[in-house]
Amino acid sequence: MLNTERMKRVFANLNTKQMMISDPYAIFYLTGKWIFPGERFLGLLIREGKTPVLFVNELFRFDEEIGVEKVYLKDTDDLPAIFAKYVDQNESLGVDKILPARFLLPMMEKGIAKNFFNTSLAVDTTRAVKDEAEIALMRESSIINDRAMAEFRKLIRTGISEKEVAEQMLNIYKALGAEGYSFEPIVAFGKNAADPHHMPDDTRLEEGMTVLFDVGGKYKNYCSDMTRTFFYKYEPGERQKEVYNLVRRANEEAEAYVKPGVRLCDIDAKARDVIAKGGFGPDFTHRLGHFIGLEDHEYGDVSAAFDNKVVPGNIFSIEPGIYHPAILGCRIEDLILVTETGHEVLNHYSHDIEVID
Amino acid sequence: MLNTERMKRVFANLNTKQMMISDPYAIFYLTGKWIFPGERFLGLLIREGKTPVLFVNELFRFDEEIGVEKVYLKDTDDLPAIFAKYVDQNESLGVDKILPARFLLPMMEKGIAKNFFNTSLAVDTTRAVKDEAEIALMRESSIINDRAMAEFRKLIRTGISEKEVAEQMLNIYKALGAEGYSFEPIVAFGKNAADPHHMPDDTRLEEGMTVLFDVGGKYKNYCSDMTRTFFYKYEPGERQKEVYNLVRRANEEAEAYVKPGVRLCDIDAKARDVIAKGGFGPDFTHRLGHFIGLEDHEYGDVSAAFDNKVVPGNIFSIEPGIYHPAILGCRIEDLILVTETGHEVLNHYSHDIEVID
Repeated sequence: MLNTERMKRVFANLNTKQMMISDPYAIFYLTGKWIFPGERFLGLLIREGKTPVLFVNELFRFDEEIGVEKVYLKDTDDLPAIFAKYVDQNESLGVDKILPARFLLPMMEKGIAKNFFNTSLAVDTTRAVKDEAEIALMRESSIINDRAMAEFRKLIRTGISEKEVAEQMLNIYKALGAEGYSFEPIVAFGKNAADPHHMPDDTRLEEGMTVLFDVGGKYKNYCSDMTRTFFYKYEPGERQKEVYNLVRRANEEAEAYVKPGVRLCDIDAKARDVIAKGGFGPDFTHRLGHFIGLEDHEYGDVSAAFDNKVVPGNIFSIEPGIYHPAILGCRIEDLILVTETGHEVLNHYSHDIEVID
Repeated sequence: MLNTERMKRVFANLNTKQMMISDPYAIFYLTGKWIFPGERFLGLLIREGKTPVLFVNELFRFDEEIGVEKVYLKDTDDLPAIFAKYVDQNESLGVDKILPARFLLPMMEKGIAKNFFNTSLAVDTTRAVKDEAEIALMRESSIINDRAMAEFRKLIRTGISEKEVAEQMLNIYKALGAEGYSFEPIVAFGKNAADPHHMPDDTRLEEGMTVLFDVGGKYKNYCSDMTRTFFYKYEPGERQKEVYNLVRRANEEAEAYVKPGVRLCDIDAKARDVIAKGGFGPDFTHRLGHFIGLEDHEYGDVSAAFDNKVVPGNIFSIEPGIYHPAILGCRIEDLILVTETGHEVLNHYSHDIEVID
């Protein structure tokens, strides 16, 4: 059912009077209805002071009333001609960032609106501030992820491959109450952990390797995301401990700094400074974090490029890493919620150095 | 490595002198390199008489030479300004159908080209004609699917749920040499088979139900796709046999009709006429088929809306169905290749009525 509170917040952020929203996640966020149309068009046209119109292929016909006018489309329909009946041609039309060229260019050619703007930010900045219902689900999702990490750790044994570990993760999430992955899990042994985008392969675990898990599940549509780095059957050496503890301090100092009003770029800088002062600046090669919710990566980065101030309800990852093939590849990641008075770290799995025997 | 033969064919189909290709499948098709950039920009700029340029985020940096100039992008870069150095501003720029508004609108605003057109068809119609290497892989992929169907049939027993069957399918595909699914499998019991887009749920199998499997795996990146409908522990009644045999005849008459020069809409009509004359026209609610290759749904439909003539190398599905909740939900689907002299059905699993005991 149309969430009128979220709709109001979108309009408050929107600088056009009408917008065609095509992102299935945004449509679910606003209406509670999931439709994944594949290659076909799906759009929720929102208009100031009027009932929203959902344009959806007749293949996805549904009976329930969700507080919008439904317009069913056939594969052979002239879409811009149909949209033109509902869009005010004398006004600009906002579209969202993912609207594909195959739909956007014909709308522009037919001139169904005065102008076209990417107004995704109106929806994205609304979604970036989670409401109470969402916060409750995000908390629960991360609690499941904490439990999942404890289970994944138990899968580790000499000779098992990264893929063999990864293949067991989905069932563990399901057993813990999640419905699926937030993203394909990263399992990285040894030097593979020094590649931040490593995908599980046939590398087999040996004593003396590190084990990195970057994993997340979905609970009632809301994503978790956490990374931990373990040591398999060996005590890390001095240099490795130094790297691990730098990453840990970067994580914890950045987290401690989070409260309403601080800038995302300054949170990033907190972590980056710790690692740079420790002499490993060039080995921390990515942004500190990303926003998360219905999708594992939502609008908003914790990076030098974002100077927005955080507000209560923001949820994002804090995930510093050092990728030094000769010493250690290591990342420690939590999700964090900005609260009225400060923050709440949604993950509770320990940051301590943990040797798996 | 850049496939110069495929590049030539794309240029022969292209009516602009330059095109920015952003579809990871098309980029793999042309260069042999898989990059899935997530939310980040990825583009292969092809230019008449010049080396193609691959724009890719530095996160996906790679060493191998693939016959293109690589330009690495940072998250903070002004993308249109970088593209402008390589795009001829006095010429039109083709873009592909999936290019999202967040990249297209800034390119238009900065005026990096004279005009912007959706020129996906140049790539899509090239990809629609499979070359020898692709045909060999598509054959092999469908042979694996035939074998998989025989295995899936064995999973059937009283009390098992659709989800429980579906969850075992991935490992079966992998054991048979496929690397994954072409799409999430459809497993539908009883009346659920009368919903062409049913997703596996907790429905449990009982004697007297039909069992529909619509399944496909990927073999060396190439997709299979086949549907069969079985009868669980009962001989179908007369009306059910009538429906099943109509669907079977629709499938087989459409397949028999396929040869170079016939129109896609006429293939669709062949099947549709059989079902309409049998009195079930309104219960065949979708197109007859779709093209397939690296993706399970590629450009090209076997439907009333497509009057293109088929040519050797086209591969598409033939999948008539009748969805009549009170009698039977049934679909029979094969992949078919257009050959120089006629056609080759890539699936070999029997169309006979099959009672599972």
